[in-house]
Amino acid sequence: MSTEKNHYPLSGITVIDLSHVYNGPYATFLMAMAGATVIKVEPFQGEHLRSRGDMGGAALPFAMLNSNKKPVTLNLKSEKGRELFKKMVKRADILVENFAPGVMNRLGIGAAELHKINPRLVYGSSSGYGKDGPYRDYPAMDLVMQAMCGVIDSTGFPEQPPVKSGAALCDFMAGIHLYAAIMTALYEREHTDKGRVVEVSMQDATYASLASNLGMLHARGDAAPARTGNRHGGLGISPYNVYRTKDGYVVLNAPGDHHFRSILDVMGRSDLKEDPRFLTRSSRVENFAAVDELIEGWTLTLGRNDVAQRMLAEKVPCAPVRNLSEVMHDENMHARGSLQWVNHPDLGRVVLPHSPLVFEGTQRREIEPSLPLGSANEAVFGEWLGCSNDELKALKAEGVIS
Amino acid sequence: MSTEKNHYPLSGITVIDLSHVYNGPYATFLMAMAGATVIKVEPFQGEHLRSRGDMGGAALPFAMLNSNKKPVTLNLKSEKGRELFKKMVKRADILVENFAPGVMNRLGIGAAELHKINPRLVYGSSSGYGKDGPYRDYPAMDLVMQAMCGVIDSTGFPEQPPVKSGAALCDFMAGIHLYAAIMTALYEREHTDKGRVVEVSMQDATYASLASNLGMLHARGDAAPARTGNRHGGLGISPYNVYRTKDGYVVLNAPGDHHFRSILDVMGRSDLKEDPRFLTRSSRVENFAAVDELIEGWTLTLGRNDVAQRMLAEKVPCAPVRNLSEVMHDENMHARGSLQWVNHPDLGRVVLPHSPLVFEGTQRREIEPSLPLGSANEAVFGEWLGCSNDELKALKAEGVIS
Repeated sequence: MSTEKNHYPLSGITVIDLSHVYNGPYATFLMAMAGATVIKVEPFQGEHLRSRGDMGGAALPFAMLNSNKKPVTLNLKSEKGRELFKKMVKRADILVENFAPGVMNRLGIGAAELHKINPRLVYGSSSGYGKDGPYRDYPAMDLVMQAMCGVIDSTGFPEQPPVKSGAALCDFMAGIHLYAAIMTALYEREHTDKGRVVEVSMQDATYASLASNLGMLHARGDAAPARTGNRHGGLGISPYNVYRTKDGYVVLNAPGDHHFRSILDVMGRSDLKEDPRFLTRSSRVENFAAVDELIEGWTLTLGRNDVAQRMLAEKVPCAPVRNLSEVMHDENMHARGSLQWVNHPDLGRVVLPHSPLVFEGTQRREIEPSLPLGSANEAVFGEWLGCSNDELKALKAEGVIS
Repeated sequence: MSTEKNHYPLSGITVIDLSHVYNGPYATFLMAMAGATVIKVEPFQGEHLRSRGDMGGAALPFAMLNSNKKPVTLNLKSEKGRELFKKMVKRADILVENFAPGVMNRLGIGAAELHKINPRLVYGSSSGYGKDGPYRDYPAMDLVMQAMCGVIDSTGFPEQPPVKSGAALCDFMAGIHLYAAIMTALYEREHTDKGRVVEVSMQDATYASLASNLGMLHARGDAAPARTGNRHGGLGISPYNVYRTKDGYVVLNAPGDHHFRSILDVMGRSDLKEDPRFLTRSSRVENFAAVDELIEGWTLTLGRNDVAQRMLAEKVPCAPVRNLSEVMHDENMHARGSLQWVNHPDLGRVVLPHSPLVFEGTQRREIEPSLPLGSANEAVFGEWLGCSNDELKALKAEGVIS
């Protein structure tokens, strides 16, 4: 099995990836794009995201998160499967899994067992609530975590029911924190020569992102509203809202007094610069209804891109509310190479993300589209682990690989 | 200046932190909690989050993100200030900044300049749109990025206006990706003996979290709804929703057919197990209105915690929609030490987060509450850089430090 040449940050690093859906696979996707060799180990039916069909909706997410990985199938419930697995672990640097706590131990391949085989292994694990708290056995998925973490109650209009964030933020927050923890341990290994067990819970990974809302709760106690619609989560900035235009919405945010003065200039209302309702951040926050009315009265006379261009020309934080089709074709991300058009063998020509981690001075690793289940069985079990063709045939016949 | 003893993953690492508000400070908070010495360099008025007052709402967020950091003041617009800064950089491992692109170069302390002084420096930078695309000069803040990234348009009820996520997810996604990129480069430095410039844009860091919604857009094209309320972002799972109860809301999510059969058992409706509308994931998705009606008819008869407990007993992913006060007192996070009660000198007894990165086998570093502006001037400029008392007085008199 050819490994990457030594010019990416993670060149030479081998990752055994047992993870599924978004959380773990995002972490290992970032490792692959940073140059690691990622072996994606799946059960015979494929990991959940590959196998769930989902009326077609899971196809692109799978492709987004599984570029540049080498997929193998392995039956970890068979003794021979576990033997093969341990041989892989012996040669690996990193293992990633996001099973429910206890699953790896029940399979007989928990961290303690694997560290006997390879003390340098960095073992990264993620779950909803972590391994050692009272909620450890609760099933966890993004929607459930958004409810438990306060994201749902904090999202939506005050007079409406709460609503989840459209982004699967608990899943992805966990995934990127998991990558971060593993990299920290990989760095540390250079000094200790020992691999660590690192762990990330979706719950822990989400908490800080509610800082504004938690701050308001702390400052106002029971008087703090649960959610503020499109106003600032701490109700501490004005203007800060979504405003209607002739053809959609814009957002506008003026954290500094100078931003607000620029807004008045753009709107042709420089006459209001000395209006005591608008002079300072505090006075604007107290008069936020008047601020919003003033602004929307103007934005409604223009198109959203026109509003945004006029405000941006004066350095006011402003943007159209874009739909996902516009986002997928974003000229800035395509110019940077963080989104790329790729000819995918199954999906045709699609837009796929590269890694958000940009290492200046090194060309981005080329995106290799995600591969069918078990595509790398020969390369990994044969070429890399050294099984002969006959052995591979036998493993297949015995139901160890597929 | 005492540095941490060599038993945390980042013990011995020194970080110069020029960052402000949420994005950069979250990255350096994680470094501090992993054992690094983090020197927080602020202008005389303090970084934005410290100085903005915000009617009290910024106090807790500042405390959440600035534990275990050493705050110094330094006037980078003065020649002597930059000299002092370069002395610090010479002894540091990591520099973090989230200024708008170009600011560091204009100050004469851009990455190229600093690498001349210290080629081993890992230079981490984050901005809204990155340094090299056409949008690079657009001002960027969380609300603006949520609009540009499609988070706002994807959040909310289909028949209502779009609404931002209550969590500041673009800020925090960028912050944790920045930490991740820096750790990757720190690991790489062990092999190359050279520091890297790494870069993360808020825009890139947010994209993947919309995987479900992008997947639906790919599968259904123009027929894909912009937002799905509390239903699955890809409309690929049912049940998956927020349901009313007697005293609030619960979420419930049944990705597998066996989950749905368990739900029927809990509800006492095992008679529906063979109902063709509910047999498979696809049939439930097609009949999601009937599924939701069936479930809410039952949840409305019980309290939210009662519903959750009954469902969890059968391993169905389910949770009450909790408010932030409940989240702040979460027994699981307190048991794990990821939330802790801390006596903060300014704020009194408050709940502060530890790092979501758990390094098993090492006790968590004790939380040291955030310090007032410039508290570490003597320790850093005196003890660490070696300025005498007279020199410190002169620097103060000349407006270089405060």
